[in-house]
Amino acid sequence: MMPLPKRSLTSLLVRYNGRCILVDCGEATQIALRRAEWSPKPIDVMCFTHYHADHISGLPGMLLTMGNADRTEDLLMVGPKGLERVVTALRTIAPELPFAIRFHELKGAEETIALPDMPEFSLSAFKVNHNIVCYGYDFRLARAGKFDALKAETLVSDKRKWGRLQKGESVTGDDGSLVTSDMVMGKARQGLHVTYTTDTRPCDSIVKYAQGADLFICEGMYGEPGMEEKAVSHKHMTFTEAARLAKQAHVKELWLTHYSPSLIRPQDYLDTARAIFENTVAPRDGRVKELKFAEESDG
Amino acid sequence: MMPLPKRSLTSLLVRYNGRCILVDCGEATQIALRRAEWSPKPIDVMCFTHYHADHISGLPGMLLTMGNADRTEDLLMVGPKGLERVVTALRTIAPELPFAIRFHELKGAEETIALPDMPEFSLSAFKVNHNIVCYGYDFRLARAGKFDALKAETLVSDKRKWGRLQKGESVTGDDGSLVTSDMVMGKARQGLHVTYTTDTRPCDSIVKYAQGADLFICEGMYGEPGMEEKAVSHKHMTFTEAARLAKQAHVKELWLTHYSPSLIRPQDYLDTARAIFENTVAPRDGRVKELKFAEESDG
Repeated sequence: MMPLPKRSLTSLLVRYNGRCILVDCGEATQIALRRAEWSPKPIDVMCFTHYHADHISGLPGMLLTMGNADRTEDLLMVGPKGLERVVTALRTIAPELPFAIRFHELKGAEETIALPDMPEFSLSAFKVNHNIVCYGYDFRLARAGKFDALKAETLVSDKRKWGRLQKGESVTGDDGSLVTSDMVMGKARQGLHVTYTTDTRPCDSIVKYAQGADLFICEGMYGEPGMEEKAVSHKHMTFTEAARLAKQAHVKELWLTHYSPSLIRPQDYLDTARAIFENTVAPRDGRVKELKFAEESDG
Repeated sequence: MMPLPKRSLTSLLVRYNGRCILVDCGEATQIALRRAEWSPKPIDVMCFTHYHADHISGLPGMLLTMGNADRTEDLLMVGPKGLERVVTALRTIAPELPFAIRFHELKGAEETIALPDMPEFSLSAFKVNHNIVCYGYDFRLARAGKFDALKAETLVSDKRKWGRLQKGESVTGDDGSLVTSDMVMGKARQGLHVTYTTDTRPCDSIVKYAQGADLFICEGMYGEPGMEEKAVSHKHMTFTEAARLAKQAHVKELWLTHYSPSLIRPQDYLDTARAIFENTVAPRDGRVKELKFAEESDG
């Protein structure tokens, strides 16, 4: 929550199929990105949990760097009410960009944001409980069922039509009748699921969205014992509280983040969290995880 | 000019007598400050050369960190026209601070800014030549002449009055007549002088202000040969141009700064600059120099 020489502000980059979604952009997030040797250019979507400075102060610099990298495609921004006002104010020092910004201001308690060119990918926002309006974000990648080639051959001998069936569309079969996708595609397989939430007290919306997540990234502001009251008054969480959420939501893995600057060695306080939820990690800066579909990771 | 993992944005901290003046505050300047193990709390004055993002994008975070460090004293900001408008816009994400900000907007080609509680210290701004209005800053520390104790004893035997004489004030002498400071103080001795300028083409105002400086910090955007035209069109300088200014101004030492991100190893291009001005340095991040009055450094 405070930028330190060896600890950047909290931010998440979700990369899928050459596209990137950035959640929060505090001061020096662009440096952390560069340190990880990723380009800011392919960031198509920026989501903001809320507008405390440590979550958005790096925006003007990031936008300029994206512009310097010759990005020309629209950038979609998603965030709580006030998004356009806050971004416009910060752009006082980044007025000229070679790309347009589209704003999606969140209103209700939960919302799924359409990303028209990524139909298999789902981005949702859900309200959490901080001292100003704050949202968590949920990412799901759907995975279609297996294509039954033997069956498809009996219905549609023209293989050029198979691609459309695999995409969920219907085609005309050999006998002139309509062949729908579900006639040749098996049941949808398990996809991938990441849930991200920071700057919040524990709340039901987190458990709901994180349910069964492959990776649950959750704030763990305080690890040291005796910080429970401070967590309540500052509307943050202890490691223990985050671990309880992970357990309730039956996630596969929990990453703690958004450490207090007073928490010098987060790893020292993992034991109590792990007693509640075994697969708890206290990552250092630049942690990367590549999630793969179930069968692929077995191969 | 672009924040990199091992190269922060250009900024200068002038420290004197427990007080600090910061010139420019780009993204992550507060991290560079912390890396140098200096506190942001005693920053009493912030000067801005201009409002390109790399010179002011770190302001909201810096202000919040100063607030978290419990600063309550007023902060004076100095910068070109538009200062209050730009700072107010950036404070959209840093609205609540435990200290007040006073604004001093520069108007003319040159201006000396009064720092009432530091009469021996002089801060001046001078317009330079960039693609938007931009100023350089000049810092001078005056040094009084030697106090002639033998002579003082003959005029004012009450030693409690000597401090006022040393501060330039007048007192009543033993014979009832007025004793002025200059009667017991020698000629003012050589003080200290630092000149700082970045984001500019070479221009006369720089030579004028940097004249005889102990330390002249000047942008050197390009070191590689063949960048002369780019320097002209982007309104920046080559190492060679900075060295010529240093020579013209008869400074003691030249530091180059504000390197282009394309300039990976600035030291590799020092030779041509040194052929013009021998005492040219291409500092890395965090360079510190303690300037001392002439006689003291001889001791």
